[in-house]
Amino acid sequence: MKVRLECFPCFVRQALIAASQITDDPVQVKEIIDLSLEPIRNARLSDTPAHIATEIYRRIRARLNGTDAFRGIKAQCTETALKIMRDFEPMIERSPDPLEAAIRASVAGNVIDFGIYTDINLDSIVENIMHEPFGILSLSELKSDLPHAKSILFLADNAGELVFDVPLIRHLLQFGSVKVAVKSVPVINDATMEDAMASGLPPGIELIENGSDCVGTILETCSDEFRRAFEDADLIISKGQANFETLDDVKDANIYFLFKAKCEVTAGMVGVEKDSLCAVSNRALLRLQA
Amino acid sequence: MKVRLECFPCFVRQALIAASQITDDPVQVKEIIDLSLEPIRNARLSDTPAHIATEIYRRIRARLNGTDAFRGIKAQCTETALKIMRDFEPMIERSPDPLEAAIRASVAGNVIDFGIYTDINLDSIVENIMHEPFGILSLSELKSDLPHAKSILFLADNAGELVFDVPLIRHLLQFGSVKVAVKSVPVINDATMEDAMASGLPPGIELIENGSDCVGTILETCSDEFRRAFEDADLIISKGQANFETLDDVKDANIYFLFKAKCEVTAGMVGVEKDSLCAVSNRALLRLQA
Repeated sequence: MKVRLECFPCFVRQALIAASQITDDPVQVKEIIDLSLEPIRNARLSDTPAHIATEIYRRIRARLNGTDAFRGIKAQCTETALKIMRDFEPMIERSPDPLEAAIRASVAGNVIDFGIYTDINLDSIVENIMHEPFGILSLSELKSDLPHAKSILFLADNAGELVFDVPLIRHLLQFGSVKVAVKSVPVINDATMEDAMASGLPPGIELIENGSDCVGTILETCSDEFRRAFEDADLIISKGQANFETLDDVKDANIYFLFKAKCEVTAGMVGVEKDSLCAVSNRALLRLQA
Repeated sequence: MKVRLECFPCFVRQALIAASQITDDPVQVKEIIDLSLEPIRNARLSDTPAHIATEIYRRIRARLNGTDAFRGIKAQCTETALKIMRDFEPMIERSPDPLEAAIRASVAGNVIDFGIYTDINLDSIVENIMHEPFGILSLSELKSDLPHAKSILFLADNAGELVFDVPLIRHLLQFGSVKVAVKSVPVINDATMEDAMASGLPPGIELIENGSDCVGTILETCSDEFRRAFEDADLIISKGQANFETLDDVKDANIYFLFKAKCEVTAGMVGVEKDSLCAVSNRALLRLQA
């Protein structure tokens, strides 16, 4: 999807959020906000929001000399998520439709965006999400696709969130091989290899890096290995808004986007209210946009 | 008040809102958004939000070669407000406390911020505001001040809004001389002399310009005449958030701030929830901050 004019104030907000995780000093926060201004000025209206955000986070990372400012908070998120999931996973298995429940848990993970919210009542979110209606849910399509999916690629989003993806990944393993792709370079609180290793992923999956330092999945920045996995996959599960922003136009793959529509722009793209739970195939999206 | 870090994304949003009033062309809107970036970079944390917004609107105005892009929309706002007020003013006069009702109408006018909302159900807002509790209301203080107020200065805010100030201005005229100050240069939809002349202001007031092109009232940019009026006033009524932002620190004048707290930052300053109706004296503010 192309950037929308409404996204521009949000880029500054994203820099502010990242800065606030890194330092309490207002002067330093302002300096990090300023790092977002040049990418905003350079932005083309043909870019995806993730392209522009990527440039901002690259500058923030350069300023931090490449250190992963979110490393501590990511480890803590994973730990908290593991604790919650211990009680939550049996509920999913006992549920009348375990696939739908696993998708709910996975979208719940996306709600818990530790890049935005750091002080959040995880338990109440997890309870609510089992009852909250989906804004859009391509469930029967997924159920008919899965038996033909011999190779599945799972695009991970945030650290911590990945723990909530485990029941769904376990479910996918019943059908075919599953590759779980994480970021090669830390960008905000996106899961890297280190985060994934701590997330209790089931045995049998193949954990790969996407070769990129970008927000979302900007294919031309990814490694050959990742692109081969992308092309070879019969079915792709794409977690989070940034992966949606960067892959919604892909037509020659079978992608399911699982995310909470956290802004008016993405909500509008799938025709739901802001904050809706979304689990939508790219084919359903194309039908929507036709 | 000093700018807060949360204000920075909002400056880009304000440029976007202004741009959207000026043109439908996304490329031109983006160019106007870009005009906000340099003032954001140059901003000092000791500035008020209005200082920074002023720099942004100066650049937008320069780009428009000084033409008042909001002239049409301001005239339309005033016309709509006049129609509503025809029915609304008798309700104020019949009210058990006409001063409180006039303050309510005046704050209602601030709700109708045509710089932000262009498509708004004015009738329902006007009805609601008669019953909505104030977040903060220095009414008894104002009632005890008014009999001693021989010279009153009224700082106008938006075109259209000024029509809703008429009942309050009429009330003030019972006590002393009333000067109503408007902007000398069009800045967004702030009322200028032309807008004020169309607003049905009561006879007996003196209409003055503040000599400034700034958002809010930045005293050092105002004319000597205005500053004399400011210094000589026994009582000042200040409308809107920007006047609050720029005058909340003034200690040697008796100022009542009437506004709807449209953001978390200003709401936090007066200790109310966002979107609360506020009518608060600067002395009450100083007590709050003590």
